[in-house]
Amino acid sequence: MSGPVYNRVALIGLGLIASSMFWAMKRSGLAGEVTGYARSAETRDTAREIGLCDHVCDSAAEAVKDADLIVLCVPVGAMEQVTKDIAPHLMAGATVSDVGSVKRAVIDAVGPHLPSNVHFVPAHPLAGTERSGPTSGFAELFDNRWCLIVPADENTDADAVAKLSELWEKMGSKVDTMDADHHDLVLCVTSHAPHLIAYTMVGVADDLQRVSEQEVINYSATGFRDFTRIAASDPTMWRDVFLNNKEATLEILGRFTEELFALQRAIRTGDGDHLHDYFTRTRAIRRGILEAGQDVDVPNFGRNATKD
Amino acid sequence: MSGPVYNRVALIGLGLIASSMFWAMKRSGLAGEVTGYARSAETRDTAREIGLCDHVCDSAAEAVKDADLIVLCVPVGAMEQVTKDIAPHLMAGATVSDVGSVKRAVIDAVGPHLPSNVHFVPAHPLAGTERSGPTSGFAELFDNRWCLIVPADENTDADAVAKLSELWEKMGSKVDTMDADHHDLVLCVTSHAPHLIAYTMVGVADDLQRVSEQEVINYSATGFRDFTRIAASDPTMWRDVFLNNKEATLEILGRFTEELFALQRAIRTGDGDHLHDYFTRTRAIRRGILEAGQDVDVPNFGRNATKD
Repeated sequence: MSGPVYNRVALIGLGLIASSMFWAMKRSGLAGEVTGYARSAETRDTAREIGLCDHVCDSAAEAVKDADLIVLCVPVGAMEQVTKDIAPHLMAGATVSDVGSVKRAVIDAVGPHLPSNVHFVPAHPLAGTERSGPTSGFAELFDNRWCLIVPADENTDADAVAKLSELWEKMGSKVDTMDADHHDLVLCVTSHAPHLIAYTMVGVADDLQRVSEQEVINYSATGFRDFTRIAASDPTMWRDVFLNNKEATLEILGRFTEELFALQRAIRTGDGDHLHDYFTRTRAIRRGILEAGQDVDVPNFGRNATKD
Repeated sequence: MSGPVYNRVALIGLGLIASSMFWAMKRSGLAGEVTGYARSAETRDTAREIGLCDHVCDSAAEAVKDADLIVLCVPVGAMEQVTKDIAPHLMAGATVSDVGSVKRAVIDAVGPHLPSNVHFVPAHPLAGTERSGPTSGFAELFDNRWCLIVPADENTDADAVAKLSELWEKMGSKVDTMDADHHDLVLCVTSHAPHLIAYTMVGVADDLQRVSEQEVINYSATGFRDFTRIAASDPTMWRDVFLNNKEATLEILGRFTEELFALQRAIRTGDGDHLHDYFTRTRAIRRGILEAGQDVDVPNFGRNATKD
């Protein structure tokens, strides 16, 4: 094992990502010491009970003291305020990062409040579950998952980027770097829009008076069940994602509606060839994902595994 | 173990469901003998090679001879023709069933061609994977999954329904009975509409020139990956589902679009409360599914299991 990457890491916000980071750092000894802070006293108490962080602090200012890496793990909408709170207490030369699902809005909210003697290196680990809160984390969350590093601008210190990349790699991730606007578009396609669509479909099912909730629940085995898993994610986090990635979301939803209307028209007019061609094309993307190792293809569909 | 439920079962069509039925019947000795037929000679050869069915026949007529249960496992659009082919060869007193994903259209297509001396008991096992073909089946597919029995009309023989229910229960399913029109609406909500929406979203991703296919594939970990799994299902089967459940599909898509536009408007106008309330409500349905045992809730989201 190599030694610690950072001497003191401060985790601001103690939800799924922060708690998973703590256990992943612990697993491989990547930080000399990890401090943590959460706004809610209840969350801090829980963290202390389960040994989450070496020290749980009662203020963000205390948590960031002497830290050479500070990671903002709060919802995107809370980042600006928390940055204002910690800015006067940051150590010169420290790196400030985050784990937000959108990057342009975070850069705009956080960047202006940081002193010029710290490095700002936003990041986004593409990993999550439907669970949230301090007890939801586990060391393996980032294993074999991508973490996108999105430097705030072209002048970002290369050493600071390299060091943060090293931490994420040692926490199990594959690391890539990307421009903020491009990140927000790519993630809108692969994550944000699918989440909104899943939320919508689950809401429709819930509204439909002629189909009982118990029927929806019992007969969810194919299709709908995956939607409910997606649609069970943290409401505050996702509200902030959509409010802060508005342009890309509206663009992708516009394209989605256009395509959906074309398929709807094919159903109405009985155009089976259109449907068959479309459904054949989408199969190819799935094959690509299997080949890229982002999912597994097993004959029994994982039925014997714990997930199903 | 109890003895066979049927003396001779004929499986017409040898894809995922039929092959899983064979292995499930084999597992518990539920049929004295199982014959099989597939239109494609290649499929029949494959079936013979892997020991799928006790006898693979070269015609549907031969396969149904002396069978006391015949199960139509072909796409919904092919059911009428296959019924015409087998009708003159059915044994008096036999039960004809199917496994189609829509039921009103199957009843209308199959019912009129059957002789009056056989029982017609349509069924729909709510189980599937993204795979298709004779090699995709496995004995556990139906374990703990629902199978909906949808009697063609009120005069359906109660003993024939009870016997088919017994078979499905002994293949591992939970069995419920339902009226055809209600079945088609419930399944539209829980399966058909979610599939169409997943197909659409995957198509949008594929179309978007500014996001490379490799980016979509690499960064699919949350959200999009589940959509691609759904959207990789058999194109012919799904084309037929939508063409044969047109009314319910168009109704649900109408409601879906309405809800989506309301969320889209909330994003555009920055109405965070609307989004948060909606996302909170959808979480409750997920809890219901976990409590109903239709999925499992594990802290590491199944990450260590084979599926992820």
